[in-house]
Amino acid sequence: MTLTLLFAASDANWAEYAAPLRDAIAQAGLSATLTREAAPDRVDYIIYAPTSPLQDFSPFTRCKAVLSLWAGVERIVGNPTLTQPLCRMVDPALTEGMVEWVVGHALRHHLGMDRHIVNPGRLWDPTCPPLARERPVTMLGMGELGTACARALAALNFPVTGWSRTPKQTGDIPCLHGEDGLAKALSTAQIVVTLLPKTPETENTLNARTLALLPRGAVILNPGRGALIDDDALLAALDSGQIGHATLDVFRTEPLPQDHPYWSHPRVTVTPHIAADTRAPSASRVIAENIRRGEAGIPLLNRVDRTRGY
Amino acid sequence: MTLTLLFAASDANWAEYAAPLRDAIAQAGLSATLTREAAPDRVDYIIYAPTSPLQDFSPFTRCKAVLSLWAGVERIVGNPTLTQPLCRMVDPALTEGMVEWVVGHALRHHLGMDRHIVNPGRLWDPTCPPLARERPVTMLGMGELGTACARALAALNFPVTGWSRTPKQTGDIPCLHGEDGLAKALSTAQIVVTLLPKTPETENTLNARTLALLPRGAVILNPGRGALIDDDALLAALDSGQIGHATLDVFRTEPLPQDHPYWSHPRVTVTPHIAADTRAPSASRVIAENIRRGEAGIPLLNRVDRTRGY
Repeated sequence: MTLTLLFAASDANWAEYAAPLRDAIAQAGLSATLTREAAPDRVDYIIYAPTSPLQDFSPFTRCKAVLSLWAGVERIVGNPTLTQPLCRMVDPALTEGMVEWVVGHALRHHLGMDRHIVNPGRLWDPTCPPLARERPVTMLGMGELGTACARALAALNFPVTGWSRTPKQTGDIPCLHGEDGLAKALSTAQIVVTLLPKTPETENTLNARTLALLPRGAVILNPGRGALIDDDALLAALDSGQIGHATLDVFRTEPLPQDHPYWSHPRVTVTPHIAADTRAPSASRVIAENIRRGEAGIPLLNRVDRTRGY
Repeated sequence: MTLTLLFAASDANWAEYAAPLRDAIAQAGLSATLTREAAPDRVDYIIYAPTSPLQDFSPFTRCKAVLSLWAGVERIVGNPTLTQPLCRMVDPALTEGMVEWVVGHALRHHLGMDRHIVNPGRLWDPTCPPLARERPVTMLGMGELGTACARALAALNFPVTGWSRTPKQTGDIPCLHGEDGLAKALSTAQIVVTLLPKTPETENTLNARTLALLPRGAVILNPGRGALIDDDALLAALDSGQIGHATLDVFRTEPLPQDHPYWSHPRVTVTPHIAADTRAPSASRVIAENIRRGEAGIPLLNRVDRTRGY
């Protein structure tokens, strides 16, 4: 029997996902029709993004699961018509991309690359940088992304200290928590990476007070959320030299406004929110795997707990 | 009994090594006097670099080993007065530094960092780079350094192909060899790393013919030896766009002369021979470990085979 898969997302999503989804469905050995229009009572699975006009799930009487293309499900989880199982997207490519950005920029600052990339004076200074084992890194946020980045940095010998708001069991990476733990984690960090979730409690985790706890000249890498950093406090700390450099991928307003002082600050590198993104090929494989599981009667991956909301 | 250790190397070496060697000797539990002058028949071990005036080893009748501070022993191995065991330096820090440089610059090019580091037009282009798993890397030279770098890149998901002149068993990294293997290894490489030893056979391994085998826009990283690349051929390939960028740490003449075209080429980054260096603290631990072994009657590490010459 051929399954009917309703693709309920934007035109742009369709352009990006139609081919990779069909590939992934075929590779999973599924017989299915991927369509943007179908009679609701014929639909087996809905592939969903909140950019779709679909808001009433009640006519989809046969639908076995709603599979979100987005990691965040806050715009759908409270929908009272949604009684089908809901799965959020956990794309392995997102973690991979994040690890690459964090390790790449950590090594860039560690090796002092910028002075070689831009070297109009043709300066030849053969002083070797220290080894990574001599460059302590602190990871603020030890969720899935933070832990993956911490492990990749530790594999390159960086001494990594993790920190999270509440105690975490992270096994191989020492992890501090709470206010006292934050002060301790910052006191030794030559590189700080901010990968905390955005919540009222994490807003401005790096502020005038906490930036002053870092060793002079520390480097900030923020691929997490713009709101984790007090921008004015960071600019002041960059001006004073307390912070040696900040490489920022996320901002309170994106694209970063053309007149924002980050663009012109000599100690700031702006990257345009590229650290990590859901990628259609790998996300499509996650969707196909969940349909395969649904048909085989195996528990779905990344199923949302409605009581927790994620 | 207190051992007498003769330090036979340059004044600069002494300034760098005296303190770390004394630390390492103490930590190894050895009772020893480290000195730059001693009666030859009182010397137990010689710590040696060819920058020393010492060339006649025959008066050192009690000396149990000559421990080189240099990895290369070509300037001492043929000395007919040298009858004592000779050990070359294999410094773990050298491998670590090399891995950091290679992985760092591979990620820099992979992520397209340069256009963010220098971005006077404040361009915000949120197109994500591909994942490392989509960026084939070829490692020319699969000795100790090449293999360590290949493994670190593979751990970050880069598909790595190794190549060496003669067949190598490298286990986890697929490794091609010979002329046909070189053509195949280059045909898919978006990033090429040159870590071959310098021999008459490896000179100009990258030349007009082999550079043309690469996909258009490939990036070259050379932390190995300057002579591995035909400089004129590389400059021509950079001008034509066949090679997208070259990041070079080693050169036929060092420091790189101020009028060399590499300095001004927009597609070349010069780093000043910093990819890997012997570091006094870790090298001192290797020396101390070999003295401990000599005293305990255990085989010495990195002992040179005089018939092979290394």
